[in-house]
Amino acid sequence: MQKSSIIGFSRGEKSNAALQVLNPATGETLPDSYVSASLDEVARACELADLAKLEMASLSGVQKGKFLRDLANQIDAAVDSIVGIATLETGLPAGRIRGETARTSGQLRMFAKLVEDGSWVDARIDPAIPDRNPLPKPDLRAMLRPVGPVGVFCASNFPLAFSVAGGDSASAWAAGCPVIVKAHHAHPGTAFLIGEIISQSVKDCGLPEGAFSLLFGDGRTVGQAVVRHPALKAIGFTGSRSGGRAIFDLAGQRTEPIPVFAEMSSINPVFLLPDMGKPEMDEVAEGLYISATLGVGQFCTNPGVVFYPNSENGESFRKAFVEKMKAFVPAPMLHKGIRDSYLENFEMMAELDGVEILCGSENMSDHKNCDAGATVLATEVSHFLQVPELKNEIFGPATMLVSYKNGNDLEKVIAQLEGQLTASLFGSEQSLSVHRGLVEALETKAGRLLFNQFPTGVEVCESIVHGGPYPATTDGRSTSVGTGAILRFARPVCYQGFPDDFLPRELRRGNPLGLNRKEA
Amino acid sequence: MQKSSIIGFSRGEKSNAALQVLNPATGETLPDSYVSASLDEVARACELADLAKLEMASLSGVQKGKFLRDLANQIDAAVDSIVGIATLETGLPAGRIRGETARTSGQLRMFAKLVEDGSWVDARIDPAIPDRNPLPKPDLRAMLRPVGPVGVFCASNFPLAFSVAGGDSASAWAAGCPVIVKAHHAHPGTAFLIGEIISQSVKDCGLPEGAFSLLFGDGRTVGQAVVRHPALKAIGFTGSRSGGRAIFDLAGQRTEPIPVFAEMSSINPVFLLPDMGKPEMDEVAEGLYISATLGVGQFCTNPGVVFYPNSENGESFRKAFVEKMKAFVPAPMLHKGIRDSYLENFEMMAELDGVEILCGSENMSDHKNCDAGATVLATEVSHFLQVPELKNEIFGPATMLVSYKNGNDLEKVIAQLEGQLTASLFGSEQSLSVHRGLVEALETKAGRLLFNQFPTGVEVCESIVHGGPYPATTDGRSTSVGTGAILRFARPVCYQGFPDDFLPRELRRGNPLGLNRKEA
Repeated sequence: MQKSSIIGFSRGEKSNAALQVLNPATGETLPDSYVSASLDEVARACELADLAKLEMASLSGVQKGKFLRDLANQIDAAVDSIVGIATLETGLPAGRIRGETARTSGQLRMFAKLVEDGSWVDARIDPAIPDRNPLPKPDLRAMLRPVGPVGVFCASNFPLAFSVAGGDSASAWAAGCPVIVKAHHAHPGTAFLIGEIISQSVKDCGLPEGAFSLLFGDGRTVGQAVVRHPALKAIGFTGSRSGGRAIFDLAGQRTEPIPVFAEMSSINPVFLLPDMGKPEMDEVAEGLYISATLGVGQFCTNPGVVFYPNSENGESFRKAFVEKMKAFVPAPMLHKGIRDSYLENFEMMAELDGVEILCGSENMSDHKNCDAGATVLATEVSHFLQVPELKNEIFGPATMLVSYKNGNDLEKVIAQLEGQLTASLFGSEQSLSVHRGLVEALETKAGRLLFNQFPTGVEVCESIVHGGPYPATTDGRSTSVGTGAILRFARPVCYQGFPDDFLPRELRRGNPLGLNRKEA
Repeated sequence: MQKSSIIGFSRGEKSNAALQVLNPATGETLPDSYVSASLDEVARACELADLAKLEMASLSGVQKGKFLRDLANQIDAAVDSIVGIATLETGLPAGRIRGETARTSGQLRMFAKLVEDGSWVDARIDPAIPDRNPLPKPDLRAMLRPVGPVGVFCASNFPLAFSVAGGDSASAWAAGCPVIVKAHHAHPGTAFLIGEIISQSVKDCGLPEGAFSLLFGDGRTVGQAVVRHPALKAIGFTGSRSGGRAIFDLAGQRTEPIPVFAEMSSINPVFLLPDMGKPEMDEVAEGLYISATLGVGQFCTNPGVVFYPNSENGESFRKAFVEKMKAFVPAPMLHKGIRDSYLENFEMMAELDGVEILCGSENMSDHKNCDAGATVLATEVSHFLQVPELKNEIFGPATMLVSYKNGNDLEKVIAQLEGQLTASLFGSEQSLSVHRGLVEALETKAGRLLFNQFPTGVEVCESIVHGGPYPATTDGRSTSVGTGAILRFARPVCYQGFPDDFLPRELRRGNPLGLNRKEA
């Protein structure tokens, strides 16, 4: 069956190029095909969003909460259909899809709660002081307001939680912004199913037609047209460094540049401090193996490089870890492109000077379809410091082990690191005391620091930071997970001298919504 | 006497090209000359800032407050010297320089209070739930941390409050960032005097050498070298649209792009609602005249375009306003470049189809030095809607009067407007009720909305927004005035699983600093 883009309350034409998807686990072509949006359809979606922006901005927190909760309920109710299509398209196990569906509806409810509570708007009140000298002080009140239409690019590795109704869309709606989603080519059927649920929810909750559109098509045509459209005011993206940078550059070249929140690339360094005992080392080897192979290594926070001490215990860690990685049973990656890149990047890295292969890719070459096994490379810290390519990400279940001599080595490593989503330290508190400077240095490089914990498994809450300096993201002052994600899609507006009746209720005298406000 | 850049605790060489300044009021060349920084000196300043960043980031709120307050006191103590040099360099009256000095020290104290209080860091706490099902919840804590070295470009029109120790520097230091300032070519002596005060204060308060450097030189060499240096993590700028955009583009092209907070261009539209009576119209004419000519029209929030009803009262407003503008006594603008641009832009605008000159520039052509008089142009709303150039800014005491027929006209105007720092509405509450939609539409276009007040006179407080969508700024989610300005130079960092001893005090168990935190 042919399916086409969702343009507000109507459907796209079916006259353009259509895409079909392979099941990465079996190699079979799935039956449905997905028709690319035409440029006219992209423009129509953007114009509908523009038409909807004032009504979306005028929604109360309660109204937005109602929509987000309704959507969460409908998604939960459709979980069996979602599992049906998403497992076929991604090769991910049913349990993972169920879990990710729950995370997705959970995120929608988290943002519902946030906007129903309302204090996220950072209301600031400076009442007038008419008799101030030498000049009277005017009445000034400010709060966060939506930026306007937001474009969202779906991630390959989270078909639900970072896709059509994922964190970017949820936080943009919560802020009061219309959303235009560009589906990922690897799971269009999942996108379409979720898109239809959203569309129904938009109607049921009385939101304007332009509150949501879903576009099929490739990044170079459909994606670029979205980023270039003057109605768009911000972009959310999760994906590759090259893809995110291209969108960032394009958005910066517009007559009116717009912010791009692209979450892209991270090697998520793990540091094993010098004095760890053998039992702790063994425990880390086990935990690291689980973290490095979770989801066949396809998490943004996958631990890609591990620094371990050049010592007897360090050697024991290395052996234990490699043994486990060798025993990993190959499993399907999300699509052929990702698997091919994984092998290619592994082979390029393996050929670099001073790199040793501890667990190779030979068992993958004749494997069916998109299956991939785990790999381990090793090098010494002196090479790591000298060879820039050793700091590149290999997206997949690959780990680079780097042996070091002392804390000085680690300081040099951290100074050279690019921006990261996470950085993890393992060791005793005594050892961390000795190497306290590492924490301070890592703070400047990563969005989230961990002590004796592994970076995969991103908790969705108020205090999570899923972000970090470039190239972890294109805006190191942002997070794409947790309640803080809403701040990407809001801007402060100040009202000077307005009577109550014309102020947003959040700013009125007497604080009728009972918000947590900054009042002078 | 020759003066050179301040590179940490040392001074630049005096072998490069030197700049002298003309007194804009007299045309006389001032005696001192200012030597451009060499590219080596720029690199040295950036490296010192990089070396200082961890120590700056580790300062407590109390330590930062001490520095900011000391600096404020030293600046206040030097007010007579500041007035001496700044009036010569800018042609601004002594009273204005005194006022701006007080505003500058006031801003420093405002940020001191903010960081001493400490709650600005937006601390968020999610304690561990070890027995949560199906997975234990880890302990997560997040707060805002400094972005690292910040480059600040001084404004021509605020030699103190938006210059060396102005709002950009104050907010960056408050966030815990080292600052490198590029002096404005029109008031280097004022910059040097303030720079020496800062340098002494940095020493007295025990801050690291790289906490501050001041560079002389032009934008194309010294300015660009600052923006390109890998140690720099953010830029603050106040000035022209072309200058701000050039810096924004350059920063976006870096291997590691960095955010640029450029406050640039705004025509600050004023809307007189249809039903205003004659007495109110006369009052607005008087207030508008004061606002439009304040500081010889050299404020970012200068009201550049006024929409008035095509009615008897509207005509009466127009006559009263033009009469006052004609009586304005020419006064010196900040420097020859600004005055020449003012006249040139006025003449270009005056030649556009459908534009009438109500108060011309003829009285300025043979006037001495940098003096400029006020000008008024007029057109009809249909022309304003058709001719894009009519929406350009004329920096200086120029006002464009646009007559309109009804509220529909205003809706069309607002839909076409670029981003603005401010937008002002005048009229009765009844009239505003009828045109409520204008407020909602203006919200998407401006950082600050005013009712029956004029846009000049930016209050420095918690709730001010001095910002707005592009081209008002390059980041419409920011403000460059008020406490919110600190958020430009900070990024969230999350700490997962750390014992108290290794957490910033802001995040420790028991809330030892007594902050306003979000605790789950």
